[in-house]
Amino acid sequence: VESSVVSRKLDQAVGFLREAGIDLWIAQFARESYEQPTPVDTLAVGCSVTWPAAFLVAASGRRTAIVGTGDVANVRAAGVYDEVVGYVQDVAVPLREVMSDVNPTRVAVSYSVADDMADNITHGMFLMLQGILAGTPYFDCLVPAEGILGKLRAYKLPVEVRRIQDAIEMTHQLFGLMPQLLREGVTESELADRLRGEGRARGGAPAWDPRYDPIVNFGPGSGFGHSEPGTVALAPGMLVHIDLGLKVEGYCSDLQRTWYVLRPSESEAPLEVQEAFAAVRVSMDAGFETLRPGIPGWTADRQARDALLRAGYAESEFAFGHQLGQTAHDGGALLGPPWPRYGTRPEMPLGEGMVFAIEQAVPTEAGPIGLEDDVLITAGGAEYLSQPQTALEYVRL
Amino acid sequence: VESSVVSRKLDQAVGFLREAGIDLWIAQFARESYEQPTPVDTLAVGCSVTWPAAFLVAASGRRTAIVGTGDVANVRAAGVYDEVVGYVQDVAVPLREVMSDVNPTRVAVSYSVADDMADNITHGMFLMLQGILAGTPYFDCLVPAEGILGKLRAYKLPVEVRRIQDAIEMTHQLFGLMPQLLREGVTESELADRLRGEGRARGGAPAWDPRYDPIVNFGPGSGFGHSEPGTVALAPGMLVHIDLGLKVEGYCSDLQRTWYVLRPSESEAPLEVQEAFAAVRVSMDAGFETLRPGIPGWTADRQARDALLRAGYAESEFAFGHQLGQTAHDGGALLGPPWPRYGTRPEMPLGEGMVFAIEQAVPTEAGPIGLEDDVLITAGGAEYLSQPQTALEYVRL
Repeated sequence: VESSVVSRKLDQAVGFLREAGIDLWIAQFARESYEQPTPVDTLAVGCSVTWPAAFLVAASGRRTAIVGTGDVANVRAAGVYDEVVGYVQDVAVPLREVMSDVNPTRVAVSYSVADDMADNITHGMFLMLQGILAGTPYFDCLVPAEGILGKLRAYKLPVEVRRIQDAIEMTHQLFGLMPQLLREGVTESELADRLRGEGRARGGAPAWDPRYDPIVNFGPGSGFGHSEPGTVALAPGMLVHIDLGLKVEGYCSDLQRTWYVLRPSESEAPLEVQEAFAAVRVSMDAGFETLRPGIPGWTADRQARDALLRAGYAESEFAFGHQLGQTAHDGGALLGPPWPRYGTRPEMPLGEGMVFAIEQAVPTEAGPIGLEDDVLITAGGAEYLSQPQTALEYVRL
Repeated sequence: VESSVVSRKLDQAVGFLREAGIDLWIAQFARESYEQPTPVDTLAVGCSVTWPAAFLVAASGRRTAIVGTGDVANVRAAGVYDEVVGYVQDVAVPLREVMSDVNPTRVAVSYSVADDMADNITHGMFLMLQGILAGTPYFDCLVPAEGILGKLRAYKLPVEVRRIQDAIEMTHQLFGLMPQLLREGVTESELADRLRGEGRARGGAPAWDPRYDPIVNFGPGSGFGHSEPGTVALAPGMLVHIDLGLKVEGYCSDLQRTWYVLRPSESEAPLEVQEAFAAVRVSMDAGFETLRPGIPGWTADRQARDALLRAGYAESEFAFGHQLGQTAHDGGALLGPPWPRYGTRPEMPLGEGMVFAIEQAVPTEAGPIGLEDDVLITAGGAEYLSQPQTALEYVRL
């Protein structure tokens, strides 16, 4: 993600700081951040550092980076922080000086129990920060920045929505290749390699761990969840399920589609498969219809979950939807059930300008049916950024 | 790094646990670890996870992974943890169960203020862990795992030393290309691209952020420290300084070399440049001679630093040496001055089987002179894994 986008995100952050009554945000306090990168780096920092470094954003708009002298050139070149203070021996000295100068009452630090994507400082660096501030008036001022950072990830600028749309468009192009890629005997991992290659050729990177992006399932014996495509070879009577994300210019898509491979004797899928597709479609629609600013995410999950239960399927083990942005699971408000695993995220309200991937899946005797689409929350509800799959697609080998 | 190597590192870790009187090591407690990877992942985990996951290593040798059901296939496939417990709603329940079963008195968690490479849990996840253990006998048992994790990174298995040697060998091959790559007018960034390409072609990856691996400096006007190669074009009378690291099968090299581009009228470098090279060489030798098991790292830095000061050069702003392994700055015992920036690492003693990169540099009117070599600490002292540069190399364009 280029510095110009990071810089615009920091302008946006200043608004959130003021709304929250935060005087200073320690966006990052890290070291060796190429070896230990965090999602805040590409959102609010703009480069990696080697020695302990603090990136500060004040409610006044002042942006100060305090970095080891060996990192100064690199941080200046990134051009996101106007003020770059180099130190040789001890980050504590210039950090305390800048703190005194800003003299904040509330200082937000990028950590969160609830929101993984807003949890970007190590425990050791948090303890180091406390040690540096011990004996200053700022020691007791530290609060989690999860609200600010969660909003900053969630409320997309127009440039961010455009990039997500570019990634979605490229993903649809790859799905368009599927009828020609689905050949008798092709294995899951061969198809996955082919899709990865076609994505790379178009300038797209994987949106998550490439070992299971795409997830490819042929038939009922295939792996479940985040598992690597395997050696199952394609044959008639199988469902083909793909979960594919691409990252384009730093922003992600996340889509699922399902095909059925007709047997020579068949003109449509077995009734069980057709009913399962219909149930997934109904669940997706029920969840989508619920989406609008102000609702807590669990209400959309509940509608989608209940629709599936009413159709006679087992309860889903997963959340109905998650945010999408620089990462495929972009944190913050979640369209998920109120389970401890999801913390307080299902309670967080949706807002205009957020982007979610919504998804639903059920197993059948022919394999899993899974659908996933990407949506933008609008003033009045939500709109699809992708073109939803409304009918099971059929393939003959 | 393949699972077989990770598995051998966990066998090694059990020895360190017993030595330290630790009953259980929570090697990792993380979520979305593809988006937020930490150096412990390739050392002691073996794969990434999406939902909150705990990777436990007991002093008995028992290895248990507690992961969301969607991650189970992936963790089983990695094959490092024999016991994989899947959960749907709440990681706390199986985690408390396994803790009760092991019933530890001292539980090490992978965080550290002093050692960046041993600081691998976020502050939010540490707070979540405390929340899970609140009300159990284990709440007060948490101690930092920095000693165990520092040793585990530092004490290399033979397979690890061999891989570092492979990376060093490939780096020497690239240095061997330099006389033919150094042509009139080539720019720093063109040379950097060429070296990166030659490394890739041989199966090597960058050992650190590829924006400044290699660092390339032509002449005195070039950037300092971790800065990107620029637009300076090569001309006679310039020093050429390269800091290059390669990662081969998960392990790194880190070497610096210096060339001088003779002017048509010159048969050797200006006296100032020759003297500076000699001073850097003397400093390197002084530091190297000091190396042996048992000494704290700062003593080697002191010898190297003093040798440079005695030769009349300004004091170095950097540590004389750092560990090398899966990362180019591999944490733990550091050959550095006792500055706050380095925490307690300069006090940590060296041990047989550790690998260090040692380095020294000075600026001259023709550009920077920098040397860096990789050494293994042996029972009686240290031996070079690379072939040190003993004389300034000359190039004619």
